Amino acid sequence: MSWVQIPQNSHFTIDNLPYGVFSTATNPAHRIGVAIGDFILDLKAIHHLFNDPKLLKSGEHVLTKPILNDFMSLTPSEWHNVRIKVQNLLNGNDKTLENNEKLRKEALVAQREATMHLPANIGDYTDFYSSIHHATNVGIMFRGKENALIANWRHIPVGYHGRASSVVVSGTPIRRPNGQTKDDNATNPSFGPCRLLDFELEMAFFVGGEGNQLGQPIPIAKAEDNIFGMVLMNDWSARDIQKWEYVPLGPFLAKNFGTTISPWIVTMEALKPFRTTPFKQDPEPLDYLKDKNDFSLDINLTVDLKPANGQPTTITKTNFNYMYWTIKQQLAHHTITGCNVRPGDLLASGTISGPEPESFGSMLELTWRGTKPLTLADGSQRKFIQDGDEVILSGFCEKEGVRIGFGECRGVVLPSLSI
Amino acid sequence: MSWVQIPQNSHFTIDNLPYGVFSTATNPAHRIGVAIGDFILDLKAIHHLFNDPKLLKSGEHVLTKPILNDFMSLTPSEWHNVRIKVQNLLNGNDKTLENNEKLRKEALVAQREATMHLPANIGDYTDFYSSIHHATNVGIMFRGKENALIANWRHIPVGYHGRASSVVVSGTPIRRPNGQTKDDNATNPSFGPCRLLDFELEMAFFVGGEGNQLGQPIPIAKAEDNIFGMVLMNDWSARDIQKWEYVPLGPFLAKNFGTTISPWIVTMEALKPFRTTPFKQDPEPLDYLKDKNDFSLDINLTVDLKPANGQPTTITKTNFNYMYWTIKQQLAHHTITGCNVRPGDLLASGTISGPEPESFGSMLELTWRGTKPLTLADGSQRKFIQDGDEVILSGFCEKEGVRIGFGECRGVVLPSLSI
Repeated sequence: MSWVQIPQNSHFTIDNLPYGVFSTATNPAHRIGVAIGDFILDLKAIHHLFNDPKLLKSGEHVLTKPILNDFMSLTPSEWHNVRIKVQNLLNGNDKTLENNEKLRKEALVAQREATMHLPANIGDYTDFYSSIHHATNVGIMFRGKENALIANWRHIPVGYHGRASSVVVSGTPIRRPNGQTKDDNATNPSFGPCRLLDFELEMAFFVGGEGNQLGQPIPIAKAEDNIFGMVLMNDWSARDIQKWEYVPLGPFLAKNFGTTISPWIVTMEALKPFRTTPFKQDPEPLDYLKDKNDFSLDINLTVDLKPANGQPTTITKTNFNYMYWTIKQQLAHHTITGCNVRPGDLLASGTISGPEPESFGSMLELTWRGTKPLTLADGSQRKFIQDGDEVILSGFCEKEGVRIGFGECRGVVLPSLSI
Repeated sequence: MSWVQIPQNSHFTIDNLPYGVFSTATNPAHRIGVAIGDFILDLKAIHHLFNDPKLLKSGEHVLTKPILNDFMSLTPSEWHNVRIKVQNLLNGNDKTLENNEKLRKEALVAQREATMHLPANIGDYTDFYSSIHHATNVGIMFRGKENALIANWRHIPVGYHGRASSVVVSGTPIRRPNGQTKDDNATNPSFGPCRLLDFELEMAFFVGGEGNQLGQPIPIAKAEDNIFGMVLMNDWSARDIQKWEYVPLGPFLAKNFGTTISPWIVTMEALKPFRTTPFKQDPEPLDYLKDKNDFSLDINLTVDLKPANGQPTTITKTNFNYMYWTIKQQLAHHTITGCNVRPGDLLASGTISGPEPESFGSMLELTWRGTKPLTLADGSQRKFIQDGDEVILSGFCEKEGVRIGFGECRGVVLPSLSI
């Protein structure tokens, strides 16, 4: 419980306390905050209440920075201490804030008055392909049932380097890309707006801790020390551009025109009560991917599609615990060659699909390549995403009366530029 | 000519004036310099001689920064003005430096006393695959002569997102990676040190100018305004890891353990006299990739392989002008979807191979997958790169008595870690 009023079903309970970066019309400086109910606790405004000298980086308090990278670069025990202090300030165990009206008014900002920003400078962004249902669906569509999963898939958390510059925060409009495509029966490619624009329901985690030096892997047993927290992600995809370009070096322009993340980073500590047994892996992975304390997470995920001027329709419901490869396995695999990761790097799950058609994480799968259009609440149909459509991802965990959530990850599609 | 003595055959003539970032034992601060002969002109030490108010970013002089990103973010005409001023200071047209012994001693640093650093914060690193001879060689080896070039190759400057965190400056040792590989006749993959470690001879350019906003492509006619200069690059590759992992999403761990660049960025203005007609493209590319002022560059490239305690052997000689796709086409293609690029982003050519076996840009091609080992000067043979081997890339342009060069891009291979 908190002395800040928390609406029923709020994602931002006293058990959550996610970190984000915001500004307001009256104070355009970017600053770090924690979501609580419909408010943001401005940590810059109260940073003097956090006295641990470990919170100083080059003499500056990490909670006064305009991005979270320096805070992310601390250790799990330092993250824990800050979390406990914030929790005590908000639950009444520590009355400093509750009883100081001036500070309280300064430090509590209504979310509706805030603009959210990217929470970190993302050095590198990696996208995995770790849902077996998604990989199987795509494989069936493109290679047939017999060869659906490629031979390496159950041995390697397959992934690729994504584009960091075009990762944007929820609410940023996404322009339909132009590009090169080739119809199956055409001799030559043609140029124009993407016709098969898709979303991908994903989650992603931010690297935290010290990271690793080039040449020194992060063993899976230590991976947790280097995972700060998680967000929702929409990995917008241009399926027709992708089809023509992706052999042999993988998706490039099909994915580089925008990737949307939710603004609030839910910490691994807040997620701890929602750990589940990982997906049963068959065959057993190689030793460097094995960890007896490994876990998945029970996170309910939904996607709504909202046509311009229309009501949203829920088009999928799935769960993060369908993931075959775990986030610890992803980090251990990524660094096994000695590849260095840095605080603020972003590692995404790949599209999260469940086993049932109602739990698929992309239009490609939901409409089975456009062959089974979805019908929305307003009666209109969709094979892929239309201009003006808004895609809204949402996610939350709930167990024994405790509820924490990720809020929303939204993006509306603008028409392509004429070129 | 310059009053600074320039050794014969120096890469760093008065016509070159490449930018880099260095430090010295007596002054460990990273600072921007220009190479001239065997010296570095410390631009921080003489920044007060550059008075254009456009050189101020947020009130700070861009030539006092520890990285080049802010200088890169200016316009070609501002780069030109700085170049002319540096040239005049060094060729005696402007006596300010020549006649000021104290300033001269402070500002001229011997290269042998300097440590070079990465010249920019690299936001994103992209690697293309733009040499037709390389793509054909690899295609023949992996798919046979009939299907050597994939159908998209002559239409698209094929590329993929690389790993920015592991781009390192020349001289940084590279540790042989561990990873997952699978022999053709094995049922399951195994884990261990890469056995087929390779170099790739590449060049790369740094993005400059304002870059572009997300959603707004850079048309090919404006691409030049967004290209700052070029470096040599060794895109180290683990061929056995690559083979097992790269379908369907492209190379990932096979390339993320280290990418070496030369420390001196040769500007596009210095390279202008060495422009050549681009490779004849057949079929004609789509309009967004066409530019009547497009160019390639006549840059002589060599690779030497130096065994531990041995002499270097030149193992390939090739030229940048073998590239099929131009750097302007690469940038126009990269941004055609609206993908934003930022000053300091790095776009690489892909392996540069010429038509003859002596001009191939990787061990994979030079030894034809290990079937034709190279013999080095010391009599030893190589199918791929061994521990202790140093790979040394070098490049220069020469025409009508004008010579400019890139210096070297070196990296020595350390044995893998036991895991």
